[in-house]
Amino acid sequence: MEKKKIPDIIIGRLPLYLRALNRMAANGSAISSSKELGEWVGISAAQIRKDISQFGEFGKQGTGYNIEFLSRKIREILNIDRIWDVAIIGMGDIGHGLTEYQGFRNRGFQVTLVFDNSPEKIGTKIGDLAVQDTADMVDTINKTDVKIAMIAVPADHAQTVADELLKTGVKAILNYAPIRINVPDNIRVQYIDPATHLQWMTYYL
Amino acid sequence: MEKKKIPDIIIGRLPLYLRALNRMAANGSAISSSKELGEWVGISAAQIRKDISQFGEFGKQGTGYNIEFLSRKIREILNIDRIWDVAIIGMGDIGHGLTEYQGFRNRGFQVTLVFDNSPEKIGTKIGDLAVQDTADMVDTINKTDVKIAMIAVPADHAQTVADELLKTGVKAILNYAPIRINVPDNIRVQYIDPATHLQWMTYYL
Repeated sequence: MEKKKIPDIIIGRLPLYLRALNRMAANGSAISSSKELGEWVGISAAQIRKDISQFGEFGKQGTGYNIEFLSRKIREILNIDRIWDVAIIGMGDIGHGLTEYQGFRNRGFQVTLVFDNSPEKIGTKIGDLAVQDTADMVDTINKTDVKIAMIAVPADHAQTVADELLKTGVKAILNYAPIRINVPDNIRVQYIDPATHLQWMTYYL
Repeated sequence: MEKKKIPDIIIGRLPLYLRALNRMAANGSAISSSKELGEWVGISAAQIRKDISQFGEFGKQGTGYNIEFLSRKIREILNIDRIWDVAIIGMGDIGHGLTEYQGFRNRGFQVTLVFDNSPEKIGTKIGDLAVQDTADMVDTINKTDVKIAMIAVPADHAQTVADELLKTGVKAILNYAPIRINVPDNIRVQYIDPATHLQWMTYYL
């Protein structure tokens, strides 16, 4: 599929649509209206129709979306009709939890490399993966095709790790450290920031 | 401030603005244009002006926003000009990491109760907090004013925990378990879902 320029904010909603479609399918549904999908994700039916129409004709007026077909198309659009290898740096609680996280399965990702700088952790196993030395990270990643990394080190180490990742093929970083990292524009960064989620909810309390 | 009906999607952007403003202040800035703020959060200047104008007159044409003043106003709007006590259920890696997470500090939250159902963990300390028995969770929370909880238990326990939380004063749940939980409409739920963030980025790879 040739890509036309789609606003980033719409791309960001596609994973939410996909998650909802998967849950509807798990509940036994085959067809979803834009209204029903909207209720799952908390977005108006009109917005959903507009977003999805950016990518082509996926539903017929009055018949709703075929869930399996739309899910497959969204996976193609998001480039997750394949499995991406992922590296995690920092095997503290969060990194360890991510390594064993069950939520990546069937969603396009597998953790294949894990790093830490602590001598007590290097060489230990987490599931099938041996923890490798962060000092060797650049060389180790460069022997692989890994393009995605998750940073789970303390805040004051995050920028150093990000700088090192720039020497590898990593082009997308999910940062769990509670600090902004500076990288060139060609590297995508997203943040996991629980305080931001909590602040969204306190408005309503 | 009397609340008029503001779209939820705008409320959800305010924590991002606040985070950016705090970072600008930490960098020594006192004034921000909507364009500069927009670049920090990846949203257009026009959208930012529109969002912020929903809550009143915060900037003068041509002079930009006073960062300290706007930050304070956003904290008031989001009800985080105070500290909220938070309970965490599940002291596996993720829950343990959240308990010690430094990113809540100065952002309106403190973890005051932690629970697990494992006899090996109950009674142990994480920092100053003793891990309490999930079996006593309802009674324990009901002795406090806790309105916010984070669920960090395995996916197949998340709904049970959510059901128990309904018997307490908890009105906002941040769910780390990779599964949707069903709660009444008066309970807010947000999800931390790393796969969703990764899928957003793979579009660009």
